[in-house]
Amino acid sequence: MITLTSDFGTPYPAAMKGVLLGRTDARLVDIGHDFPRQDVRTAAFWLRETLPYFPPATHLVVVDPGVGTDRDAIAIRAGEHALVGPDNGVLLPAARRLAGDAALESYVVDEDALEPVVPAGESPSDPDEGPRSNTFHGRDIFAPTAATVHDSDGPDTVAFLTPGDGPVDLELPAATLVDGRAVGEVLVVDDFGNVITNVPGEFLEGREWVVANDEQVPVGDTFEAVPAGDRLATVGSHGYVELDVNRGRGETAFELAVGDRVVLEFVD
Amino acid sequence: MITLTSDFGTPYPAAMKGVLLGRTDARLVDIGHDFPRQDVRTAAFWLRETLPYFPPATHLVVVDPGVGTDRDAIAIRAGEHALVGPDNGVLLPAARRLAGDAALESYVVDEDALEPVVPAGESPSDPDEGPRSNTFHGRDIFAPTAATVHDSDGPDTVAFLTPGDGPVDLELPAATLVDGRAVGEVLVVDDFGNVITNVPGEFLEGREWVVANDEQVPVGDTFEAVPAGDRLATVGSHGYVELDVNRGRGETAFELAVGDRVVLEFVD
Amino acid sequence: MITLTSDFGTPYPAAMKGVLLGRTDARLVDIGHDFPRQDVRTAAFWLRETLPYFPPATHLVVVDPGVGTDRDAIAIRAGEHALVGPDNGVLLPAARRLAGDAALESYVVDEDALEPVVPAGESPSDPDEGPRSNTFHGRDIFAPTAATVHDSDGPDTVAFLTPGDGPVDLELPAATLVDGRAVGEVLVVDDFGNVITNVPGEFLEGREWVVANDEQVPVGDTFEAVPAGDRLATVGSHGYVELDVNRGRGETAFELAVGDRVVLEFVD
Repeated sequence: MITLTSDFGTPYPAAMKGVLLGRTDARLVDIGHDFPRQDVRTAAFWLRETLPYFPPATHLVVVDPGVGTDRDAIAIRAGEHALVGPDNGVLLPAARRLAGDAALESYVVDEDALEPVVPAGESPSDPDEGPRSNTFHGRDIFAPTAATVHDSDGPDTVAFLTPGDGPVDLELPAATLVDGRAVGEVLVVDDFGNVITNVPGEFLEGREWVVANDEQVPVGDTFEAVPAGDRLATVGSHGYVELDVNRGRGETAFELAVGDRVVLEFVD
Repeated sequence: MITLTSDFGTPYPAAMKGVLLGRTDARLVDIGHDFPRQDVRTAAFWLRETLPYFPPATHLVVVDPGVGTDRDAIAIRAGEHALVGPDNGVLLPAARRLAGDAALESYVVDEDALEPVVPAGESPSDPDEGPRSNTFHGRDIFAPTAATVHDSDGPDTVAFLTPGDGPVDLELPAATLVDGRAVGEVLVVDDFGNVITNVPGEFLEGREWVVANDEQVPVGDTFEAVPAGDRLATVGSHGYVELDVNRGRGETAFELAVGDRVVLEFVD
Repeated sequence: MITLTSDFGTPYPAAMKGVLLGRTDARLVDIGHDFPRQDVRTAAFWLRETLPYFPPATHLVVVDPGVGTDRDAIAIRAGEHALVGPDNGVLLPAARRLAGDAALESYVVDEDALEPVVPAGESPSDPDEGPRSNTFHGRDIFAPTAATVHDSDGPDTVAFLTPGDGPVDLELPAATLVDGRAVGEVLVVDDFGNVITNVPGEFLEGREWVVANDEQVPVGDTFEAVPAGDRLATVGSHGYVELDVNRGRGETAFELAVGDRVVLEFVD
């Protein structure tokens, strides 16, 4: 199985699928292609929260603002999973959650050793002048890499992969908890408008109210704990405190966006 | 085969797919994940119009404003099809069309008897404190239920399903036809902006003009029956009267939205 | 393998998939369903740029403003590929690139000879009054045609296909290059906002600057060749000159839309 994640919209992911299906019989599963453009951190968050629900698979990830620069293309082995993408940190939070930091093995793609992608109706040309683009490595480098890794006995057996010094790291920011007060930030806003913070859900345990950025809101187990249109704090499906509106959009009601500071405290 | 329907956008459906693929080899087919948020009636309409075109399958449906409340998770057997989702009526119009009311069998999920969903890197915990969320039953309850139902010999053979009293019902509103006048409403507006009413297409038979909410428009067999930009009434692919604009958006031209009253009559 | 392309949004493509899966075991792959509505030329461009990356497949394409009129439904054999869709030119640029003009064979669907699509809960009716709609040939004609073509030994062996006089043609406009000056137009704007022109990438070879519609911009190998927010000209992954903004939207910065004239020249 190969999963696909990108910020490509339509129809660039289809070209990647064509390349994959020309080289492997793997089942393809989309994680999503509508992630915010060139936003490495948001994609890293969603991968970390989604990939652990999959059985062992190869995960192809292309959120790659540095496409065509000298950033490497890499593959990471994380236990029974493999991840393929740009070396910009996007793979790391998911890889760590899948297998733990100590277990990760990282490899760099030798792009010149990759069998070139040749579309129907063209012939393979001189590698220096070949059909490889500078702006669509998803199609020309990451997809063929993922296909080969998927069908191999592991990245260490793939000829065009060489052990790397270790990938660029990316840590999602952690909240600080001091004296019953949590200082964190908005990690992402989901498609429902739910504001997902980085404050662990345990912070709300046993509480009926919380003060979020100076506004007091009820703590609910479910959205329906408050009337439609009302605000609440709840523990989301990722285990973090969310600021939501029942049947509405938390981001609008709380006036919060990704990266905004969130302070949670209690009135006792 | 398992079909997936939700109002989740990106990337929550992928977590459901991960859970499904960890438990079954079924082929997965998306009906759609961009249905209007928490709009049970619209999803029920599209399921009724879409699922009958599928061969026998298990249909996983999560449009679930009451997630985490005491509404049940249910499974319905409808002939050779099975449907899994929340007990809020969303499954009923489709199930009735697939197999007829008399043939439906309804089952309630005993959530405590479900094998818990455990992401990679975590261990199954105490069921009372376990990884089950209150806000994402699609991943934690409906997906594992659908996987088991799909791979079973029918819902009646699944240990964690018990016969129910009968699901919450949902009837899509019907139009009234009196004295050559149809009084109905807008059922849905599709992605083209076509206004789909609940007036049966037969109402327009043999007519060249119809008066829709006091505006006279031609009746056309096809969009192209009128010049680009012009309004028309036609019989849509679901068999209902639609109010459309050739190469334009009917919802804008007719100023109609879901639930709005539509009166159709003839000038003789 | 069957690929699917349409301008349908959600959920009409799912009804096509249901029909396909009731008739064939082929793998289904979406090219995309969010192409601009009824825009034959844009879909033709993306098909030409995407399908050549696929292994041999049947390609089902429904961008069809003339649905229900007397335009034919056709199938084209292009080497090891087959394309099925409306006879409005949308298939031609891709078919030509896949196999060359001389190799194409074109067939017309005899709609009355097609086995009708009958949804669950209904019985096949009189062909003249049957369930075939005038507005959704994707479901009622193109999907069953594609399923049969896919499972056949080629379109020439399918009973309901007859050799056609040749399909409606569509040529994407070519740029004119005179005296070091290129006069072309915007072919499409992609989801990133990149403005894709019809000027061949070779035009920029060896240049560091280009004047695009009277504005001088740097020529870059990659988006990152200029600071974030700055404009550049580059050679896109389709081999054409693109007008882009690094981490921004070229269409906004250059104030260009599909079909707009683009003049590129050099200051020496």
